[in-house]
Amino acid sequence: MSAPTYGRVALIGLGLIASSMYWAIKRNGALAGEVTGYARSEATRATARRIGLCDRVCDSVAEAVQGADLVVLCVPVGAMGAVAEEIAPLLKPGATVTDVGSVKRDVIQSVGPHIPEGVFFIPGHPLAGTEHSGPESGFAELFDNRWCLLVPVEGTPDDPVARLRALWEGMGAHVDLMDPDHHDLVLAVTSHTPHLIAYTMVGVADDLRRVTDSEVIKYSAAGFRDFTRIAASDPTMWRDVFLTNKDATLEILGRFTEELFALQRAIRTGDGDHLHAYFTRTRAIRRGIIQAGQDTDAPDFGRGKVAKT
Amino acid sequence: MSAPTYGRVALIGLGLIASSMYWAIKRNGALAGEVTGYARSEATRATARRIGLCDRVCDSVAEAVQGADLVVLCVPVGAMGAVAEEIAPLLKPGATVTDVGSVKRDVIQSVGPHIPEGVFFIPGHPLAGTEHSGPESGFAELFDNRWCLLVPVEGTPDDPVARLRALWEGMGAHVDLMDPDHHDLVLAVTSHTPHLIAYTMVGVADDLRRVTDSEVIKYSAAGFRDFTRIAASDPTMWRDVFLTNKDATLEILGRFTEELFALQRAIRTGDGDHLHAYFTRTRAIRRGIIQAGQDTDAPDFGRGKVAKT
Repeated sequence: MSAPTYGRVALIGLGLIASSMYWAIKRNGALAGEVTGYARSEATRATARRIGLCDRVCDSVAEAVQGADLVVLCVPVGAMGAVAEEIAPLLKPGATVTDVGSVKRDVIQSVGPHIPEGVFFIPGHPLAGTEHSGPESGFAELFDNRWCLLVPVEGTPDDPVARLRALWEGMGAHVDLMDPDHHDLVLAVTSHTPHLIAYTMVGVADDLRRVTDSEVIKYSAAGFRDFTRIAASDPTMWRDVFLTNKDATLEILGRFTEELFALQRAIRTGDGDHLHAYFTRTRAIRRGIIQAGQDTDAPDFGRGKVAKT
Repeated sequence: MSAPTYGRVALIGLGLIASSMYWAIKRNGALAGEVTGYARSEATRATARRIGLCDRVCDSVAEAVQGADLVVLCVPVGAMGAVAEEIAPLLKPGATVTDVGSVKRDVIQSVGPHIPEGVFFIPGHPLAGTEHSGPESGFAELFDNRWCLLVPVEGTPDDPVARLRALWEGMGAHVDLMDPDHHDLVLAVTSHTPHLIAYTMVGVADDLRRVTDSEVIKYSAAGFRDFTRIAASDPTMWRDVFLTNKDATLEILGRFTEELFALQRAIRTGDGDHLHAYFTRTRAIRRGIIQAGQDTDAPDFGRGKVAKT
């Protein structure tokens, strides 16, 4: 039997991504010799122990990173810097530190300065998730056929990048390398702005006095419920995303409101041709996503086949 | 064996809703003696005949409505008035005319005046659909556990309303009665504005020169792909919705942009508390929708269980 990709992997923060990583690593069998885990909350650690999450749950971050060949920061983006500072003196020479944050420029700025000489820092971001959070929300298939973007800092040798790539591919993901600023812009388009918009729409519905919450809930199947799934995502994670990817998000929001005003004007003036042309164009992107295997073509996401209550 | 709810039902327009109605009526068996169908497009009629949609596909709308006890207008909202005018002289006394349009005030204004004395007009709206359209997109389960709103015009007797309710309940739906203006406002919140926003976001992504279409497609799993499903809905149907529910949509859009600007400002000024509080509040609505049986709690809509490519 050949050696695993990493002898010891430490997962810091035990939410949806870390727990899915653990189950995906276990599914494969050849990726890690041992996986340690740490969460700041005692309740989370207790849950992790109860459900068998991680080979060893540690009560201190120092114990978890001790001797680790790979340390994965799985905490909200705003907490990354403090964790990095805490673990920096404990890192083994030749180890790799990576993260799974949704923003990359900010993580590089807050984590990078703490990484000691002889340790590799390779920021990463798996583009996968669900609306659920916490240690019990993970599952081994989360990364299957999803993309993980790696954003190595300048001067990182090829070998540790190839090793981290092998880990992600071993967990089912495809891997691309990307520049941090471009990452933050792409994600502002494909994730951050859509989330903000969904949160806003759900907030508006909740606020409206002339339409009751119960009506909003009963009649949500006409489109709104898809927004509520996105707007049920973890509030702390998303607060940090917007605070740390401010510039790109504000830029895309500006484009969004510009387009929205144009469509609003077409509605006001009764310009049906403009609306029809716009609505036709957007169908093509959906076809591309299905052809790329990034979503199901089953009607309504195949919801009907999952749970018919 | 007791008599069916309606002796003959005529479906005018053979898209997603009409085809689902046919399969739902067949599944039940006690709802209609015969179902006729008509579509303006010869190709659609040919498809309907090929897949066995409707007991009898007719080459003229006159033939389809002849002797019908219930006529269901399943055409885009903008086409309802013209169809009503055409069929008005052919309607059997005591028959009921209903529709499935997403807007009700406009349908009442465009269809109502054509309805002859002795015929009941009971506008309706099943809150169900998928992003697919056309005669092949229908399925019997579409209305199961979904709501259908009936909006009887003033003076409509109870009996024909109860009969139409029985049809919808027999197809699996729950039925509520509602005033047309309130219907249009509720739907502006739960459906029309969310659709416009989704179309806008997808249009922005498509437009952005610095992010290629292929990046948007590959990396869509981070949230964006949910918007593309909604923005893949039928362009003609949605053009008509916005043109005919202009006032309510513009009102909700105004509220939406107001909220969006407040969140945008919180991002710009770094007001994390405001963002966190907002994102926490919106989680509650999601829970309500799941408790009401209007969506699945399976992570990511249970997509993983439907198609893993």
